[in-house]
Formats: sequence, C-alpha cells, structure tokens
Amino acid sequence: MSLKKTVNVALGSRSYPIHIGADLLANAEILHEHIVSKQVLVVTNETIAPLYLDKLVDQLKVRFKVETAILPDGEKFKTLEYLSEIYDVLLQKRCNRQVTLVALGGGVIGDMTGFAAASYQRGVNFIQIPTTLLSQVDSSVGGKTGVNHPLGKNMIGAFYQPQCVLIDTAVLTSLPDRELSAGLAEVIKYGAICDKEFFQWLELNMDSLLARDNEALSYAIKTSCEKKAEVVSKDERESGIRATLNFGHTFGHAIETDLGYGEWLHGEAVSVGMCIAAELSSQLGWLPVSDSRRIKVLCQRAGLPVEKPATMKAADFIGHMKVDKKNITDTIRLILLKSLGKAVIYDCIDDSLIETAITKYGMKYS
Amino acid sequence: MSLKKTVNVALGSRSYPIHIGADLLANAEILHEHIVSKQVLVVTNETIAPLYLDKLVDQLKVRFKVETAILPDGEKFKTLEYLSEIYDVLLQKRCNRQVTLVALGGGVIGDMTGFAAASYQRGVNFIQIPTTLLSQVDSSVGGKTGVNHPLGKNMIGAFYQPQCVLIDTAVLTSLPDRELSAGLAEVIKYGAICDKEFFQWLELNMDSLLARDNEALSYAIKTSCEKKAEVVSKDERESGIRATLNFGHTFGHAIETDLGYGEWLHGEAVSVGMCIAAELSSQLGWLPVSDSRRIKVLCQRAGLPVEKPATMKAADFIGHMKVDKKNITDTIRLILLKSLGKAVIYDCIDDSLIETAITKYGMKYS
Repeated sequence: MSLKKTVNVALGSRSYPIHIGADLLANAEILHEHIVSKQVLVVTNETIAPLYLDKLVDQLKVRFKVETAILPDGEKFKTLEYLSEIYDVLLQKRCNRQVTLVALGGGVIGDMTGFAAASYQRGVNFIQIPTTLLSQVDSSVGGKTGVNHPLGKNMIGAFYQPQCVLIDTAVLTSLPDRELSAGLAEVIKYGAICDKEFFQWLELNMDSLLARDNEALSYAIKTSCEKKAEVVSKDERESGIRATLNFGHTFGHAIETDLGYGEWLHGEAVSVGMCIAAELSSQLGWLPVSDSRRIKVLCQRAGLPVEKPATMKAADFIGHMKVDKKNITDTIRLILLKSLGKAVIYDCIDDSLIETAITKYGMKYS
Repeated sequence: MSLKKTVNVALGSRSYPIHIGADLLANAEILHEHIVSKQVLVVTNETIAPLYLDKLVDQLKVRFKVETAILPDGEKFKTLEYLSEIYDVLLQKRCNRQVTLVALGGGVIGDMTGFAAASYQRGVNFIQIPTTLLSQVDSSVGGKTGVNHPLGKNMIGAFYQPQCVLIDTAVLTSLPDRELSAGLAEVIKYGAICDKEFFQWLELNMDSLLARDNEALSYAIKTSCEKKAEVVSKDERESGIRATLNFGHTFGHAIETDLGYGEWLHGEAVSVGMCIAAELSSQLGWLPVSDSRRIKVLCQRAGLPVEKPATMKAADFIGHMKVDKKNITDTIRLILLKSLGKAVIYDCIDDSLIETAITKYGMKYS
C-alpha cells in the first residue's frame, strides 16, 4: 500500500478518519471496515464514471453487492429533482437501512449523496471519496450536505457525518486546470482566516501546486483538512466559530445566485468574495492594505478570477446576500479579517459599507 | 387557563414537553418561550385552516411576524413535491435559520413540517400542534419526520425533535368519526404491546371514547404519550425496542402501499395489521387465541376494519413487506406478541409462515 496520512475529525460518537494518499483508490479495502452490510450504492457523475467507477467497483465487489447511480455532472443538477433519482435507485434496488452510500465525485456528488444518506429511511451510512481538490479540502470535512433551491444555494440539507473519507491525490492528475484553481481558493482561505504561516507557505509553493507536485498537494490537502477539522470539532452545527469558514462565501454565493449555479465554479466565486471581504476589512482599518493586496495576488497566481462579474452591481450583491442563510434578522453577516490569519464574524447593519467596498474594489483594481 | 397536563419526552438536550388540555389553542402563549425570533411559519392544510388557523395566528401575531402555508389535505400529498412548497414559502418570505415552523394539522402536516424544519438551512426549530387523535397519540411523540416515495411509505425523512407539542383535546370535537377510530387504533396498540391494564381500561371505556368524553380522551392521550415517550427515550433512533411501536405497521404499510396512499387511513391499515400480527402470534403458540380475539373485537368496537382488502392476496403483502424499511437483509422483520401487553421483535425468515397467517386469518373470520 502507498504512503497514507490520516486526519481524524473529532466529533465524539460521530468522529471519522480522513485517509490521504496517492493511489488509495487501488486500495479500497480501507473502506471495508466501514461498511456494515452487503449493500453498497456508489453515486457518481458522467464525468467521473468512465475514469474511476470501474476501478472502485472492482475493489468493492469482492466483498459487497454494489449498485451504481450516475448523475449528470454540474452544480445545476444539485436539486431536489436529481436527489430523487438517488432515492429511486435505492428503492428500486430494495436497499434497506444497512446500505452504505459511497460518494465518488466532487462537492456536488458529495453533498447530494450525503443528504440522500441523511434522509433515506431517516439516515443510513455513507463514505466520501472526493475527486476534486475543492471537495477534498472543503466539503469532505464537516458534514454539511444538501441541495440548492432556485432562490438560494444549499438551502435544503442536513448536518450529517460520513463513516470515513478517502482522498486519493492521484486522481488530481485528471482534474481540469480550472477546477484545480477553484480548489486552491479554499486552500488559500484557510491561510487567510487562521494560519498566516500556511498562507506564506502557499505564497512560496504556489508554482509547485499548479504543477501538481504530489508532495506539495498532499501537504496542502492535509493542512487544509486539519484546519477545517479543528474548527468543525469545536462547532459542528455552526453556532459560532465555524462561520469563519464562510470567509468570501457570502459575496461568493451572491455571484453564484446572480449568474445561475454552474456559470462560475464555487471556488471562483469564493476567490472574488475573499478579495471583496479583504477590501472591506481594510476599509474598516483592520487589515493592512498590503495584506489585502497579498490575498488578491495569491488568488491571481492560483489562476482565479479576482474581479466581480461585469454584469453585477453592488445592489445585486446586497439583494442576494439578504436571503443568504448565514444572515441573522435584517443584518448581513460577513466574515472579515482582523489581520492576515485571523477572521472575525461581523454583523453588518449598514448596507452602504458593503456597497462602498464593492464599488471601491472594482474601481481600484480594474 | 384550562387544566393542563404535561408529559416530558426525555431525550437529553433534545427533551421537550407535551402539553395536553382542553382549549389550549386559545392559550397559545404557552408557545412563546419556545420561539426564538420574530419569524414564524404556520403550516396547515385546507381542511384545518378554516377551523383553527385564524385562532392560532391571532394568538401568535401579538408577538411574532406570522406567515402561513396551506397545503392540500391528505396522505397522497405527503410527497417531495408538496414538501417543496414549504421551502418555497420559507425562501419567498426570506425566513432565516432562526425561524420557527408550527405544524397545525394531523400526521401528514406534522411529518412534512418536521422534515421541512429538519432540512431547511440544515435545521430550524419547530412546534407540533396535532389536530387528529392519531397524530396526538403517535406522530407528535418521537421525532419521526418525512415524506412518502411512490415505492414506499416514509422512505425519505429524518429523526428530528420539536421544541414542544401542544395538544388541544377540544379540537377532537370537529374530527370525523372515521378519523377518531383511526386514532384509536394506535391507542389500542399501546395496550397490546406494553400495558395489559391499559388494554383492559380501553375495553371498559371504549364507549366513552367514541362519545368523545373529554376526560376519557385526555386520559387515553396522556397514557399513550407516556407509553411512547418511555420507549422513545430508551431508543430514539430505533435500533432496538422502539421497533415494537411498529406492531401492526408492517402489514399495515403493505395495505397502504398496495391500495395507494390515502385510500385507507393509516389507523385503519394498522388495525388490520394488528389483527394479522396477533393471528401470527397465536399461530406460533405465543398469544392465546382468546387474546388475539380480544384485539380484533376491541378494534371492531372502535369502528375499525379488521379484514384485509378483498383485492389483496398473501403474496401481495409479502412483496410489499420486503421493501419495507424495517427489514434487515432478506428476512421480514415483524413485531409480534409474546402475550397481551408484551411485544417482541421477530425476524421471519420463512415467508410461508406469514402467508399462512394471512390466509388462515381471512378464512376464519370472513
């Protein structure tokens, strides 16, 4: 077996391990101990299926009766309608409460499969095998599952933890450049919100990451999972500190909602969102302008967009942000930076502050 | 305020009170302490709305901003499609994570509102105000929420506990006879599975219950809630003893699935299910035939059907039961009676045993 690192997500009886290593898909017997009955349903999408589905099924079918469900690929299919297709297969194949669902794919597949597991027969087991950098460093840790609604992203879902996560870094070789960059947005986020040294490491190693150097990727993934696991362990249901993980996301969700899900990748929207949030942090006199600039430059070097879509005005952002689920009453809840590596929750009661940041940001850099 | 009895459902941090009394709807300030923000959404149906919605909203709007969602009435609307309508209202009204959902209606409204609360923004608060006897003694205790799938009842859902339950016995005056009887099926169940004395009390007081004597109804509701609360406290997620509450339900679900949801009321199907399960218990030499007979007679006196639908054969039951979610692997999990007042879980590996019970039962009494 290849070298394997393990990060433990400490959540009491819901704790689970994240195994990270090159070519772990060829060693899927790691999963056996987490599967309680003969029934396994692997959920994946049309892009991933031809690449890795057979490999995984071959590994599992030695011990289990394996069914598969293949969904179309993309955020726009993260809906109740396509979720229903997973339920349909589960029932057509007469899967009972002991079934284990396996999510083989990116964040969309992980979120949908996780919510299907949370809600099928009021809860069955599931395992995550994230195949994009974004899902490896973000959605595979912490148990947020769900689907989108036409009026808002991730509006329907559950907190539901997997039995384990298997991260095969070798699958990143087949990941399109654009998606690698989108994943790096979340990696940069961990540096920005809670680890200045990791941010500096990213500045030094961005070229290796883009060259898909396996050692650099493994380190970035492990560190990201550790950062997230630490926050999630303290606040599983996001009543406090976990909200800081949403740095850049409130602005980012506004972009995704405005353009329609799937136009921009999640990480791309988050990149612009982080740049605007950093601008606002500087505007409040917290974050030195030079550090706000470093965030923008690092995102740019990662191949990410750093300017808002030309079609969106400040008022469009504010309209969308007021229905974002992170909001409390009429204020807009933002995650800002007190300094590089230190995020805070900020309930903004003055829309004009946000308007200014968006407008100023656009003017200064464009 | 009218005389109020309270049953506590002990579930650690998820514990909640059930308040029982005549005319509690006119004293809905009991609910105030359980509502955390200004936003309240009352979910009800077209039958209940004209009877009680204004009364409740008038009580709540003194303190809260109250929105309403009115669904069509009936089990056949307990689907993902109609669940979506609740999400639509929540998002159109910009409800955030602090919203409280209030379920005003029978089991269908309670189950759907509970699941909407479990899944909206990954979980918001809810309160149950059950308006049928069935939902008062059954679905309002224990946190089972969900919707049906064309291939099976309650296949999609969550375990999710309300903040509190308010049972107004006065609303039973407007309940159709057929629904009163359906509720009595679950009341009889508690006697059959865990309390022989309560079963005897029901034999003595069935006429008072059918005459809607308030004192008799209050006693029956309180005792039923206590019995269920006791079982649920021991086994919230149905890994063991809670399954005994499904006495009559595996056969009953087969009837509901076969006829299509909504043809027979749930309690009616459970009544026939209990009679068949009692027959099978006698067939195994456990339950004296005279006690099996007592169950049938009590159900009949309660105005319930005790014969299976003429169109259904034993094989139809077995086909449906094999996809019932209570099943473990290929066996059919049944709840049977070791004696009157003592239920056991029985994993039946021999279909012919079930076939014989259904066939024999039909021949003997029809």
